[in-house]
Amino acid sequence: MLFLDITDTDFDRQFSAILNRSEETSAQVLETVRGIITDVRTRGDEALIDYTNRFDRLNLTDAAGLEIGRQEVEAAVAAVPAEDLAALKLAVERVARFHEKQKSQTWLSTEEPDILLGQKVTPLDRVGIYVPGGKASYPSSVIMNAVPARVAGVREIIMVCPTPGGEINPAVLAAAHLSGVHRIFRVGGAQAVAALACGTATIPRVDKVTGPGNIYVATAKQLVFGQVGIDMIAGPSEILVINDGTGTPAHIAADLLSQAEHDELASSILITTDRSFGEAVAAEVEYQLGQLSRESIARASWEKFGAIIVAGSLEEAAAFSNRIAPEHLELAVADPFGLLPRITNAGAIFMGHWTPEAAGDYLAGPNHTLPTGGTARFFSPLSVDDFVKKSSIISFSEQGLKRLGNDIVRIAGLEGLEAHGKSVGIRLGLG
Amino acid sequence: MLFLDITDTDFDRQFSAILNRSEETSAQVLETVRGIITDVRTRGDEALIDYTNRFDRLNLTDAAGLEIGRQEVEAAVAAVPAEDLAALKLAVERVARFHEKQKSQTWLSTEEPDILLGQKVTPLDRVGIYVPGGKASYPSSVIMNAVPARVAGVREIIMVCPTPGGEINPAVLAAAHLSGVHRIFRVGGAQAVAALACGTATIPRVDKVTGPGNIYVATAKQLVFGQVGIDMIAGPSEILVINDGTGTPAHIAADLLSQAEHDELASSILITTDRSFGEAVAAEVEYQLGQLSRESIARASWEKFGAIIVAGSLEEAAAFSNRIAPEHLELAVADPFGLLPRITNAGAIFMGHWTPEAAGDYLAGPNHTLPTGGTARFFSPLSVDDFVKKSSIISFSEQGLKRLGNDIVRIAGLEGLEAHGKSVGIRLGLG
Repeated sequence: MLFLDITDTDFDRQFSAILNRSEETSAQVLETVRGIITDVRTRGDEALIDYTNRFDRLNLTDAAGLEIGRQEVEAAVAAVPAEDLAALKLAVERVARFHEKQKSQTWLSTEEPDILLGQKVTPLDRVGIYVPGGKASYPSSVIMNAVPARVAGVREIIMVCPTPGGEINPAVLAAAHLSGVHRIFRVGGAQAVAALACGTATIPRVDKVTGPGNIYVATAKQLVFGQVGIDMIAGPSEILVINDGTGTPAHIAADLLSQAEHDELASSILITTDRSFGEAVAAEVEYQLGQLSRESIARASWEKFGAIIVAGSLEEAAAFSNRIAPEHLELAVADPFGLLPRITNAGAIFMGHWTPEAAGDYLAGPNHTLPTGGTARFFSPLSVDDFVKKSSIISFSEQGLKRLGNDIVRIAGLEGLEAHGKSVGIRLGLG
Repeated sequence: MLFLDITDTDFDRQFSAILNRSEETSAQVLETVRGIITDVRTRGDEALIDYTNRFDRLNLTDAAGLEIGRQEVEAAVAAVPAEDLAALKLAVERVARFHEKQKSQTWLSTEEPDILLGQKVTPLDRVGIYVPGGKASYPSSVIMNAVPARVAGVREIIMVCPTPGGEINPAVLAAAHLSGVHRIFRVGGAQAVAALACGTATIPRVDKVTGPGNIYVATAKQLVFGQVGIDMIAGPSEILVINDGTGTPAHIAADLLSQAEHDELASSILITTDRSFGEAVAAEVEYQLGQLSRESIARASWEKFGAIIVAGSLEEAAAFSNRIAPEHLELAVADPFGLLPRITNAGAIFMGHWTPEAAGDYLAGPNHTLPTGGTARFFSPLSVDDFVKKSSIISFSEQGLKRLGNDIVRIAGLEGLEAHGKSVGIRLGLG
């Protein structure tokens, strides 16, 4: 763990290891994934069965075995304890309620005579949701991807999830059921993304692929982008806490560790204007680490990518935070709303001392799919906007075309696009 | 040109050449572009100067020569005829007015006691606009990319534009000036995209790269996606006209040709419920082709990728159009607003007989940067949304955390993320 003063002369150099911790896609990964995509596009289900049997150690013999049927889903729902199911239901409801507020409407501007202009909002027809398998197979990931799609009005939501050794978390299937997923396939990796993007005889082609995944999944999403939409490229996760010396060091320490336990590449950073508060948090992290079941992961993350930084002012802390563009930002200060206008880059902002990051991970309502690794500079949280697209509406009357026709023809001429001008001229009897 | 009935038994097979006309990125292009990006990331300005001198036949010796300075821009503005400048000014004003309507506000939901939830909207800090050089260097491209960025509140707009043989269209520089571009660099190709994404000593790193380009530019945008934002992957352009037998065949023919003159890969399609109208349009296209200065391009496009299709009903025509998801869709029918609800996939929709596509290309107001090649299934026109990002706002009071705390801890437990639960438990004195 780094303990730095923001005015240290070699601050940038020391801090750079944390900023540059994301895996770069090697030429080899790129080539492997490109090969898998081509194979799935060419051989379809056959390729999908081969990869799935090989990577997930299954013995599928026909494509029908790729789908997880209704009975299997119902059995999973029945296997989840009632209280867990109730918590998942609450999450689905709250996430749906928040995302309802993101819906935008088709509009038409009628302020100008003779020319109507507007924007039509239409849900995507079919989307694919990638859900990782194995240990990081989280029901909350299903909810956070499927519910916004459902709220947007997507007609068909397809979920893919690898089942290494044939296993799948029943809570994941239950979450899919509660969230409105229509069909589920037991495929993962680059091959699953390729199947969704290209379509096979069994897996229908979708319009957009969302959801987290490893470097192969991320690279596949990047390569099919343009053929289908994708949400964002996810990297390692991070939390940054801004503190002004108020609050309880043990609470902040717990928040930093909730990020660190995710994986060894996760980064947890505190920036405080109060050095002694920072020191108290450092001591608390050490103490609490010893009590965690996932201690080894959290400790590795904290030692390599943890940092406590002392800043001269909250303004300085906010400027630093904007440079990092953290996925999760806690404003653990006395007046978080006072600080909010200074925050320009962050995935989600957790306000004050009673809003730990975990409050937003499951059921506050906002999406937990957030831009990582500094991409909050330009990416937004997953939202209903990701599951709709827009079309411009342009409607001229004869009078409208007459009013603007000469200028249209002039610009067409300036660009050397004569036929553009003629399509106006022929209507107006020009030229 | 294909003249088909939508009920023809081999309609799909015959039509597939048009659907699959986009260039696929070869492994070789991918590798070349990947090499250029790595080179620019490593050698910075030096690599940029090398590529620019080589590809654009310049003799730059230092990085300062990469920038097009204020004097050069002012000279260009002075060189553009007053009437052209006035038309460009009108376009800037109208495009700005339309895009103002797309701005969304930061919101905070206060309907629930103890828990505030919301979404903060923040402009991107710095964006890069790619403008092609040579013959397809259009002032309207500058306007359509820069104005939405300016309306969104982007602090710095950087434009890159190759100058093959040292030449640049003065109208392009004038459009940049009128649209609020802050700095302009004479670089193009994959190297320009790489410079914007990684930053060099001379060209500042941006948060997002937008704008059209050839296959090298498109591939570079795809590969830097995730490091920076990008708008969309542009492919060959197309127009689809739906007609019900009303209107004037010569007008529709002119509209089809305004698309065909763009490039040989462009596709112009008419689908009409009136066979004789379709035949009249076919004859008009032949007649008008002979009058075009860009006849050879338009004829090649029309012969290879033009089509006239006879449909049994407008419903059938709309369903076909949704399958194509055209970039430009003209509803050249008596009641275009009646047909609008059936249109689910289209970049821009041109309503009725007095709205030729060209009316939307320059100055109606909506953006002309539209999803091509069927990507209107999931992409939207370039908009102010492309130049802002959102951050979730989550604010719990002690009471709020108490109310939801147990469910948060339960889901954390279900996912095996103990430290997540502890960050809540430690505040509430649980466990």
